[in-house]
Amino acid sequence: MNNRQVILVQRPTGAVDESTTSLVETPRPSCGPNQALIKVGFLSIDPTIRTWMNDAPGYLPPIGIGDVIRSSGAGVVVESNSSRYVPGDVVFGTTGWQEWVVADEENKFSVLPKGMGLDLPTVLNVLGVTGITAYFGLLEVGHFKEGDTVVVSGAAGATGSVVGQIAKARGAQKVVGIAGGPEKCAEVVEKYGFDECVDYRESHLARRLHEACPKGIDVYFDNVGGEILDAVLSNIAMHGRVVLCGAISQYNAMEKPQGLANTSMLIMRRGRMEGFIVLDFASRFAEAQLELAGMVMNGTLAHEEHLVQGLEHAPDALNLLFTGGNHGKTLVVVDESVKLT
Amino acid sequence: MNNRQVILVQRPTGAVDESTTSLVETPRPSCGPNQALIKVGFLSIDPTIRTWMNDAPGYLPPIGIGDVIRSSGAGVVVESNSSRYVPGDVVFGTTGWQEWVVADEENKFSVLPKGMGLDLPTVLNVLGVTGITAYFGLLEVGHFKEGDTVVVSGAAGATGSVVGQIAKARGAQKVVGIAGGPEKCAEVVEKYGFDECVDYRESHLARRLHEACPKGIDVYFDNVGGEILDAVLSNIAMHGRVVLCGAISQYNAMEKPQGLANTSMLIMRRGRMEGFIVLDFASRFAEAQLELAGMVMNGTLAHEEHLVQGLEHAPDALNLLFTGGNHGKTLVVVDESVKLT
Repeated sequence: MNNRQVILVQRPTGAVDESTTSLVETPRPSCGPNQALIKVGFLSIDPTIRTWMNDAPGYLPPIGIGDVIRSSGAGVVVESNSSRYVPGDVVFGTTGWQEWVVADEENKFSVLPKGMGLDLPTVLNVLGVTGITAYFGLLEVGHFKEGDTVVVSGAAGATGSVVGQIAKARGAQKVVGIAGGPEKCAEVVEKYGFDECVDYRESHLARRLHEACPKGIDVYFDNVGGEILDAVLSNIAMHGRVVLCGAISQYNAMEKPQGLANTSMLIMRRGRMEGFIVLDFASRFAEAQLELAGMVMNGTLAHEEHLVQGLEHAPDALNLLFTGGNHGKTLVVVDESVKLT
Repeated sequence: MNNRQVILVQRPTGAVDESTTSLVETPRPSCGPNQALIKVGFLSIDPTIRTWMNDAPGYLPPIGIGDVIRSSGAGVVVESNSSRYVPGDVVFGTTGWQEWVVADEENKFSVLPKGMGLDLPTVLNVLGVTGITAYFGLLEVGHFKEGDTVVVSGAAGATGSVVGQIAKARGAQKVVGIAGGPEKCAEVVEKYGFDECVDYRESHLARRLHEACPKGIDVYFDNVGGEILDAVLSNIAMHGRVVLCGAISQYNAMEKPQGLANTSMLIMRRGRMEGFIVLDFASRFAEAQLELAGMVMNGTLAHEEHLVQGLEHAPDALNLLFTGGNHGKTLVVVDESVKLT
């Protein structure tokens, strides 16, 4: 009985490729005292995983060479010597890219509630880190208030699409997405109900944002960084807030980025730019999950999961986030028998 | 009886030169109903004046071609048809670069208190926009608290030197200045009492800031922007605050600046970067002035005024701010007979 694992063999420069990771087999871990053994069902594929592959300071230490790729995910408890878990519990936590993982005092998992009628991919998307990031980023870091004009980059993505929908539900004046290509832009408007979507692949982004938001941008939720962030800064409204959630345009960068030229607009418009990590709000996750679950159940929160079959394809799934080849939240299916409902 | 004025004749690219302004004479203005006639004594020379010379959006409209250069300054009321002013009052407001100015409903002046024993240059420096900017920038925008490690750029300058002294007086863990050249760095430590000063003209600024602030920078008061700001961002502490007060390194820039590369540190360290304009705190100026006046009177606030004689030298005085040729607050003496004490 083995445990298939994807480990880091070489730090990537640019996109992850075949030399970055290796699929290995090790013995399935046993379940010691105060531990539980978890069979992994789904992996949550997030851009931040790419940052952990670099040998650079971050909010968590880099993944070590030879270590299993760090990742959140969900699984089912198969065996338990811990009072926290009962066999059959479906749990969420840091599974890593592997088939089996042990829960213990250092690596705690949360037990997911059953009976909501929501399937596991939906829960991993909207009620997982993705949706919670959207919620606290917009409301707490961005100080969103009714009547604001909101712009969201990565608007067709898992986090961005939720940001726009929360803003609409809470009375935004206008919600404008930024996405890559006509297909994604159409999806942002038609599926996720944004008022408008601007294609960053076309030229004159700053001017087109000005046309979409002639009174300026009150809240900008930034998933991408770089030139798109700079174009938004030139359109920031008085007392506007920029929420720095991610900088996906930079994570694969091989050269020094061009850099932001328009930060002095923050002086003229008395604007604020603030970064956050959703883990900072860990004690308040339930608050976000309650609102988001309600929106899913009453049908006001559209969402999509992009399932990639097989642990061995986790590296390809990660690359999809950077090429834009995914639609919605990217999850890797390690064992589809793991179910919440 | 004429009014000598310095007017804008051509928008500068780069530094102000002889083609930028012209010294003209117009008739001395008369004092109409509800107006007061003011003889200008001193001009406050601030970096922001350079930004008003550009034909670019700002927090105030650009100075028009042919208009008197906008500037704050102080003068004495010579004639008054307004209940707000009495002849002999020494007043502060938007004088412009000229010898005579009219106060009216559109251009109000504040009457400076006599009897404090402080001379007019000191008041224009520490109790003027310069000192007030330091006060609100550090305390309100920067959320300074006891025990913080504070870094200030332009530390030998009028605003920067006050920022550091307020931080020391209120219990900073460490106050580190950034200034240009060994002479200014020595002044920052010896005269203004900073714990340390880093010379930005030497190489490896980011590394030297790390050595000076190994636990990271809690508050950075930025007067310069550009590469220095980027070096600080790479050393920002958890929940650090960057106060964007000015970007003097950019105001004369002829080419597109390199741009900030390290803003993603704001995500990893959950940092905040916020711009402000001191006019936003206009209703609370007295609060700052009270504390600053107290510090001057009890000798805990060192300050220096750099006096440039003659209205015609106002453009040269402005250039001093960018070459670093000034020491302390730069003021132009238009008429030295105007006195507060």
